[in-house]
Amino acid sequence: MSLELVSQTKSFDGWHKQYNHQSSVLGVSMRFAIFLPPQAQKGEKVPVLYWLSGLTCSDENFMQKAGAQRVAAELGIAIVAPDTSPRGDDVANDDGYDLGQGAGFYVNATEAPWKEHYRMYDYIVDELPQLIEATFPVTQRRAIAGHSMGGHGALMISLRNPGRYTSVSAFSPISNPMRCPWGRKAFSAYLGADENDWQQYDTTVLLRNNPEPLPTRVDQGLADDFLAEQLQPEKLTAAAADSGYPLQLELHEGYDHSYYFIASFIEAQMRFHHRYLTAE
Amino acid sequence: MSLELVSQTKSFDGWHKQYNHQSSVLGVSMRFAIFLPPQAQKGEKVPVLYWLSGLTCSDENFMQKAGAQRVAAELGIAIVAPDTSPRGDDVANDDGYDLGQGAGFYVNATEAPWKEHYRMYDYIVDELPQLIEATFPVTQRRAIAGHSMGGHGALMISLRNPGRYTSVSAFSPISNPMRCPWGRKAFSAYLGADENDWQQYDTTVLLRNNPEPLPTRVDQGLADDFLAEQLQPEKLTAAAADSGYPLQLELHEGYDHSYYFIASFIEAQMRFHHRYLTAE
Repeated sequence: MSLELVSQTKSFDGWHKQYNHQSSVLGVSMRFAIFLPPQAQKGEKVPVLYWLSGLTCSDENFMQKAGAQRVAAELGIAIVAPDTSPRGDDVANDDGYDLGQGAGFYVNATEAPWKEHYRMYDYIVDELPQLIEATFPVTQRRAIAGHSMGGHGALMISLRNPGRYTSVSAFSPISNPMRCPWGRKAFSAYLGADENDWQQYDTTVLLRNNPEPLPTRVDQGLADDFLAEQLQPEKLTAAAADSGYPLQLELHEGYDHSYYFIASFIEAQMRFHHRYLTAE
Repeated sequence: MSLELVSQTKSFDGWHKQYNHQSSVLGVSMRFAIFLPPQAQKGEKVPVLYWLSGLTCSDENFMQKAGAQRVAAELGIAIVAPDTSPRGDDVANDDGYDLGQGAGFYVNATEAPWKEHYRMYDYIVDELPQLIEATFPVTQRRAIAGHSMGGHGALMISLRNPGRYTSVSAFSPISNPMRCPWGRKAFSAYLGADENDWQQYDTTVLLRNNPEPLPTRVDQGLADDFLAEQLQPEKLTAAAADSGYPLQLELHEGYDHSYYFIASFIEAQMRFHHRYLTAE
């Protein structure tokens, strides 16, 4: 697995780097970004927070806009930000912003034409962490977080992979993709018409199924334009209550769906993860 | 002077807002952004930091990428980020990224076709602060800062307007535009061939002319690709030494020209300004 360095930029006494690598899971070249805190420059192995972005985003949005590097540098946490789908002229796409490139939804597609490259679930769960842990001075302590489509991806992946992450968090996640327009459009295309095949990728369904408890924090703005139709955090609350799952849902008056909201509360999420990433 | 609200987003318990207004100085509609810290929501009047961006930027780059709102919210400082030039189909432009729209250089143009709209000096010094102070809960305590072309603009404007600002700072400023390619191209176009007319807008020239001392901080990355040819901070140091000017120049090993550099040190610059904005 060879890496091509695309850029490197010093940031808060650590390094922000972008790499290309050939993904065997996705069958395309993929770019990701990593922030290595100053502790990693000094030979120390650091834990990793994986950040899954939302619709239309690449590896760059979170790194440029969330302001997470300051806290990551203080706490000694690496951050890995993958892209949100396979990319390229040979990769299937759609005219909508909510399907195809930039909208992989962190699932393994089973339907044509998507199934050839859209296997973001396997990429995020297996291939990317293997590459990161083989290449950089990091431990195997992992946390996972994300925004909107990526907030759902983080929750869903953590629920399906007990023991793999120490904690999970999300900003403004889609809660129940089987029951919202973004999710129904994507799951229909990627997974086909049989809704039984969708359940394995739906956080609310998984939460109801008595999963192994994991420290879980969700931050949601109450002025979010997508709140009622697409995000539906009440679905998370109800499912977590049903199964006794330790969900910490923080509602924030006046905040919207943007990175200004993420920037305002990323420090709280980073400190939340740090407690579990460094626990014995 | 009427304002049209373009967007408003809660951020660190304050508000990020974008407005359009008809600028009589520039003869076009201009957009600017303002961050109002939580103190301003509670009826308190707060001081203002004016941020001048660099080439190709708009009101958005600093607000999205610098992470300044966290510190501004803590310290109770409003931030105003104007655009970097007049804009529009009827406004003169150039194919280069370093002339015309997005590259106003904070001067009043005297040459055709630029002189019709390119009067960014008057806009920043007079029209915009008048509008801000007539509209928002702010005091007349002002600081000014900027990046690259805007770092030069901040230094130059502060030197020419003693008493108007309590302090000035810059990231990676052009130091001596008369003696670097970016500056010579812009000044030739906007101000004409007579270099005597350029001196009033050149920070190094102004610094040599025994200006009234003002607290001044400059941060410069030593891995900045533009350092030797365009920025030349040694010109600032020499001119400040000649005139006994209180220039605090902070050099940073490994940092480049990007917003990752600005984000790493914006807190230091904000705390620098806060000392003078709140001094009796």
